[in-house]
Amino acid sequence: MKAARRLDEIAPFRVMELLARANELAELGHDVIHLEVGEPDFGTPVPIVEAAQSALSRGETRYTDARGNFVLREAIAEFYKNRYAVSVSPDRIVVTAGASGGLLLLSALLMDPGDNLLMTDPGYPCNRHFLSSFNANALLVPVSAEDNYQLTPEAIGRYWNERSRGALVASPANPTGSVLSLTDAEKLADEVSKRGGVLIADEIYQGLVYESDQTDTVLKVSDEAFIVNSFSKYFGMTGWRLGWVIVPETFTRDLEKLAQNLFICPSAIAQAAAVAAFEEETIEILEEHRAEFATRRNFLVPAMRELGFDVPLMPAGAFYVYAGLPDSVEEDSESFCWKLLEDEYVAITPGTDFGFLEADRRIRVSYARDLSQLEQAVARIERVLR
Amino acid sequence: MKAARRLDEIAPFRVMELLARANELAELGHDVIHLEVGEPDFGTPVPIVEAAQSALSRGETRYTDARGNFVLREAIAEFYKNRYAVSVSPDRIVVTAGASGGLLLLSALLMDPGDNLLMTDPGYPCNRHFLSSFNANALLVPVSAEDNYQLTPEAIGRYWNERSRGALVASPANPTGSVLSLTDAEKLADEVSKRGGVLIADEIYQGLVYESDQTDTVLKVSDEAFIVNSFSKYFGMTGWRLGWVIVPETFTRDLEKLAQNLFICPSAIAQAAAVAAFEEETIEILEEHRAEFATRRNFLVPAMRELGFDVPLMPAGAFYVYAGLPDSVEEDSESFCWKLLEDEYVAITPGTDFGFLEADRRIRVSYARDLSQLEQAVARIERVLR
Repeated sequence: MKAARRLDEIAPFRVMELLARANELAELGHDVIHLEVGEPDFGTPVPIVEAAQSALSRGETRYTDARGNFVLREAIAEFYKNRYAVSVSPDRIVVTAGASGGLLLLSALLMDPGDNLLMTDPGYPCNRHFLSSFNANALLVPVSAEDNYQLTPEAIGRYWNERSRGALVASPANPTGSVLSLTDAEKLADEVSKRGGVLIADEIYQGLVYESDQTDTVLKVSDEAFIVNSFSKYFGMTGWRLGWVIVPETFTRDLEKLAQNLFICPSAIAQAAAVAAFEEETIEILEEHRAEFATRRNFLVPAMRELGFDVPLMPAGAFYVYAGLPDSVEEDSESFCWKLLEDEYVAITPGTDFGFLEADRRIRVSYARDLSQLEQAVARIERVLR
Repeated sequence: MKAARRLDEIAPFRVMELLARANELAELGHDVIHLEVGEPDFGTPVPIVEAAQSALSRGETRYTDARGNFVLREAIAEFYKNRYAVSVSPDRIVVTAGASGGLLLLSALLMDPGDNLLMTDPGYPCNRHFLSSFNANALLVPVSAEDNYQLTPEAIGRYWNERSRGALVASPANPTGSVLSLTDAEKLADEVSKRGGVLIADEIYQGLVYESDQTDTVLKVSDEAFIVNSFSKYFGMTGWRLGWVIVPETFTRDLEKLAQNLFICPSAIAQAAAVAAFEEETIEILEEHRAEFATRRNFLVPAMRELGFDVPLMPAGAFYVYAGLPDSVEEDSESFCWKLLEDEYVAITPGTDFGFLEADRRIRVSYARDLSQLEQAVARIERVLR
């Protein structure tokens, strides 16, 4: 008895083995610096935690609407209105088990076996694995700093085929930190729509931008876009597993049916907590975190360039630096990551976790750790390079 | 742009419309009795809630191992050892986003498009929808009280075809409350294994049995079985969305890979809470709930038989009565359910939510409401029948 064939298409995260070894080294007493993580170090803001604790005291531990509680969906709609001046009906919003739950539901909703979705290489690896899970495919489009690491209308024209159902963009993007401008987003939406396809926008890192006051949303330029969002990153709710999707009106019934059948509902406790995520008091805390991320980025990127890493584009958002190895490094990226961990106890992620394009010469460094750790890490990396 | 074809195969819960109307009636001031629910009325035991609150105070809100925290997987293994005298390595256990997450992962793990899994009609409707989601199929085997509403080796022989990958059994079963004996489970495991297939055992209602002190687990008679379990029903943790699966050793790596990619991890807060689910203090509370369920069942089944409902088999577990309508009822089950709701404000579930076999003459009544409500409901049903 063998596993289903889709398992052959789904790669494990390479960083996981590295992480296991990093934890082993830490248990042996070594001072490991974790720059492989996709999780802010600030933890969940107190008002959100307190909201969960009160909900628990009130016994709010029951099944909710499959789409999420109306009060939360309304709060999300209100957030779009206040922050982005976009009007979204709560009926178009479905709260999910993390952005993962959202990506899973959209894959099930939109993709027949054999269909494909255009997306960038490099990109978040799970995106292509969600498609593989439903026997659909990612059509990986190689992107570079010249294209701001994003899809272009030309690339869509070149790669689109008869089984293409649409394109997925991410802004801010993991691993590159690239942010899509609204002008470019609109062009992509038009290009996809012209071909009768859908545009899916991964806005999981929304709010974590350092060049302007706020990220935008693709909803501003396309009412027909499918949005995936999360309480994990900007809102600091990683372990709660809560996110949301927004879909065009015509897909709401099918999406609800899928959510009922595949999840019953998202976590009631996380939902009660998340209502507090949009409160002024919370947003103030989150904006402090954003300022701190900006400081870290502004230290890390020049420091890495100084060491000879190739960072052609200042990452505008998220909390990652995607960099080419210095020319002096002879190993491939996986070997380099292992050497850095074994010799200097710094954990980073090899580019091979994010795609195929020159991935053996790329690494991702997360700055979800504080400045003093980043400074230490840079000093240690320098030692390995010498 | 249309939804994927699998959506045509996935039915919404019929009871949802009924539930929406029930809530509307309640808002209008009517005293609605909810006997359509699949959720215990007791709520989550206090020690579990308190464990969550302490974990929140300690800031345990981060991503965990994709398989769930080791301490919880160890506690689950310990539970099997103490309660069922079965030895399971924590490595074979993966904690999931509810049993739903477990069923989803097993479907993705085992089923290629076009494959099928044998399961009973009537049965829990999501089971077939999980398969449809991955473009596989349920091969529904009609079962009746004569077979204890369970698959038999003979039925497996009769229905099995070249695309069959295995069989799914549920014990205690929703909607029938049927419990599979270990002797029968072993025969089914042998029959499936002989054909090179897998046996999946839905043990979501494990612990909720009223004819003996404890439910067994199929693991006792088959080390190769795939187990789906949940913290929702016996442990009263519905809205927390936490369950687990147990798989044979050879599938653990593939399952972990899928869990990483599709979920990242289950809720950290729910996991911290669930560790308290196995404590003596909690089990005492849960055993009181079980005694109360038994009292309700022992009232409801004779009362329904008295009214002319056909309950050929005393339901041995879960908290449902699956019954044929009295001969005097001329409407089909959906019309009967609507009439009962509109005229007497009692909500129950039509058989059509659980399959096709004589489903238009069947209903499911949940006894997850207290005795006084059950008494009132019976009086109201009697009025509708007159």
